[in-house]
Amino acid sequence: MALIVQKFGGSSVASPEHIKRVAKRVASTADQGHSVVVVVSAMGDTTDDLIELAEKVSSKRSAREMDMLLTTGEQISIALLAMALQDIGKDSISLTGGQAGIRTEAVHSKARITDMNPSRIHSELAKGKIVVVAGFQGVTEAGDISTLGRGGSDTTAVALAAGLKANLCEIYTDVEGVYSTDPRVVKFARKIPEISYDEMLELANLGAAVLHPRAVEYAKQYNVPLMVRSSFTTNPGTLVKEEAVMEKGIAVRGIAHDLNVAKVALVCVPNRLENLQTVFETLGQESVNVDIIVQSVVQNDCTDISFTVAKNDLDRALEVLNDLQSRLGAQEVISEQGVAKVSIVGAGMISNPGVAAQMFRTLTENNIEIKMVSTSEIKVSCVIDANEVHKAVQVLHTAFNLDSVEVATVAK
Amino acid sequence: MALIVQKFGGSSVASPEHIKRVAKRVASTADQGHSVVVVVSAMGDTTDDLIELAEKVSSKRSAREMDMLLTTGEQISIALLAMALQDIGKDSISLTGGQAGIRTEAVHSKARITDMNPSRIHSELAKGKIVVVAGFQGVTEAGDISTLGRGGSDTTAVALAAGLKANLCEIYTDVEGVYSTDPRVVKFARKIPEISYDEMLELANLGAAVLHPRAVEYAKQYNVPLMVRSSFTTNPGTLVKEEAVMEKGIAVRGIAHDLNVAKVALVCVPNRLENLQTVFETLGQESVNVDIIVQSVVQNDCTDISFTVAKNDLDRALEVLNDLQSRLGAQEVISEQGVAKVSIVGAGMISNPGVAAQMFRTLTENNIEIKMVSTSEIKVSCVIDANEVHKAVQVLHTAFNLDSVEVATVAK
Repeated sequence: MALIVQKFGGSSVASPEHIKRVAKRVASTADQGHSVVVVVSAMGDTTDDLIELAEKVSSKRSAREMDMLLTTGEQISIALLAMALQDIGKDSISLTGGQAGIRTEAVHSKARITDMNPSRIHSELAKGKIVVVAGFQGVTEAGDISTLGRGGSDTTAVALAAGLKANLCEIYTDVEGVYSTDPRVVKFARKIPEISYDEMLELANLGAAVLHPRAVEYAKQYNVPLMVRSSFTTNPGTLVKEEAVMEKGIAVRGIAHDLNVAKVALVCVPNRLENLQTVFETLGQESVNVDIIVQSVVQNDCTDISFTVAKNDLDRALEVLNDLQSRLGAQEVISEQGVAKVSIVGAGMISNPGVAAQMFRTLTENNIEIKMVSTSEIKVSCVIDANEVHKAVQVLHTAFNLDSVEVATVAK
Repeated sequence: MALIVQKFGGSSVASPEHIKRVAKRVASTADQGHSVVVVVSAMGDTTDDLIELAEKVSSKRSAREMDMLLTTGEQISIALLAMALQDIGKDSISLTGGQAGIRTEAVHSKARITDMNPSRIHSELAKGKIVVVAGFQGVTEAGDISTLGRGGSDTTAVALAAGLKANLCEIYTDVEGVYSTDPRVVKFARKIPEISYDEMLELANLGAAVLHPRAVEYAKQYNVPLMVRSSFTTNPGTLVKEEAVMEKGIAVRGIAHDLNVAKVALVCVPNRLENLQTVFETLGQESVNVDIIVQSVVQNDCTDISFTVAKNDLDRALEVLNDLQSRLGAQEVISEQGVAKVSIVGAGMISNPGVAAQMFRTLTENNIEIKMVSTSEIKVSCVIDANEVHKAVQVLHTAFNLDSVEVATVAK
């Protein structure tokens, strides 16, 4: 008998019928003798509808009042799911984030969890109840309702699992688990049975949007085993945990790609020690997130500083660089769109020195130009032409022995 | 400079446009230098929509979960109104019932307020903010969300006014105030400038549905002056307070009527002391609310016991009486529909002994048969044929000098 936290997202509770289906799913876990805590998001489009209402009422939508407004979405879901569970004979109780003991910092729309007091949940579980908790929300020291921002409900589930010392945190979603690459790009993508937190983080950050990076970080910090699985099938999903077993002969766990990339460069910056620091400090102050950075000494005592940013940060990045150009005495600012990033991820590559070289060779053999390179202990990323990215993912997937024997099933 | 509590019902906040209009209304009170606390209900049909959702999900809708669900309606309203106020430059904050300090007993769907801690509201008012509070809801000792049931938002407003020692509690509604009778029945109904709590209670209970009786009782208990007025005009409304000034020559404040009446009788019950008690105790146990009771000794040592009930209690009342008939040895059970109650209400009638007689004379002169009579210190009610009720209201309104010189304006 285990304590299991199950999280269902907005698409899993989009309608009364969906909610009844989730109730059955939760009940079947309880029927196996487990204690169950369920975390749910707002139904389908509820959040968007509420935002639209707010836009009609006011042009000044303070973060505190938006939190007050939007948290009603999850509150509706928990009440309905608790009723649906009662309807099929399961004793159940719903709790708002605050009632569930989720305390956050006094920040609205993107609060971090500061504390988790599980006493109410424990006492309801002890009465034999299934506890349904509103995702995405908490309460501040002053008693105000706060929200956790992006990835919020995943984070709620992991925080509850950590606070309750749950045996497992299951994240139900519309895919079967984490894949070795995007099944829409590579027909023979395979579902990964196990993956480590760090690998998952690299994949999450690289656009395999199954789990929010913040939830994975939280799970890693508190060592909460996460199971990503489908709400539509009973197939086993992907288990995310500290040390994942690597299959024999496979050093790379997955191939990620990201089309939301633009390349920027400051050409021929005079070689002064503080220049690199100045560039990235200034970008940070303007909230431009920089990804891959390449600095290359060329000639004439000057340096090219290149980096990538998300596409919607490009304009701001160029403004910053144009300001800096004369201050630093750089020759020019250039930018390039139409690029993409392809990455191989795997904890196994630390002990396999040839992995990066194999990636470069595979891309080169397929006439794909590598524009920039970045490496970490468990990842190698290359910036390439956006038109080549699907081909790159496909050839790397094959080269690193990731092709499955069967076609991946992709849920709609 | 005063502290004013203003309450706006669901029809006043039915759409974004309505909410913006309420915001302007509230702001104009604040602009006069007053501190303002606003209580709002759920937008228009929100509560009905939520109930419909719940019905689709579950046949077992526990009161606790229904409270969790329905209170989101008011939470949406308060957030939107606070934003609308911010939009027109008024510093504002929304508070749920619990945040506003409204503590209730641990009962769901019809909790009574046990305590009101105004500290958070006071501290927000001290910062110069307009405080917007969710009506209809509170929080139990255990931190669960409760609702106050019928008349809930009016009750919230009065409770806040009492707890905050407000100078005035304004109830905004879709009529101009309390009328001497139903303006849809009597063209020359007049708006009553002042009325006492007791008179208002009699009128409220008799179907002049402007204020919920519970809110009036609460206001009387804490001596909170209530102003009932229109959300669509700036005309003065009706002030409800302890001692209302009676206009000269007018002993009756208003004429109420009620069509939701059925008459029931147990014919020829043997004269035993305990029989009357048995009948009404049994009805009470079956939650049948009895209104007018008439007991008449006829002949042969037996008694007729007649009373009125609300129409939807008739079937249950008849079941009870049919059970009792043989136990008590009564001759038969009869019932009559198609009856109505007409009442005159006024604190002034205590010192005017001829008032009841004048009512009977007026009805008799107009060939309206009086089937039952009931009196209290400030009210005389007659049960008459339902077909005669509009005529009765009209002739009584004239007989007691209530006709206005102008036609009443009725808001749509």
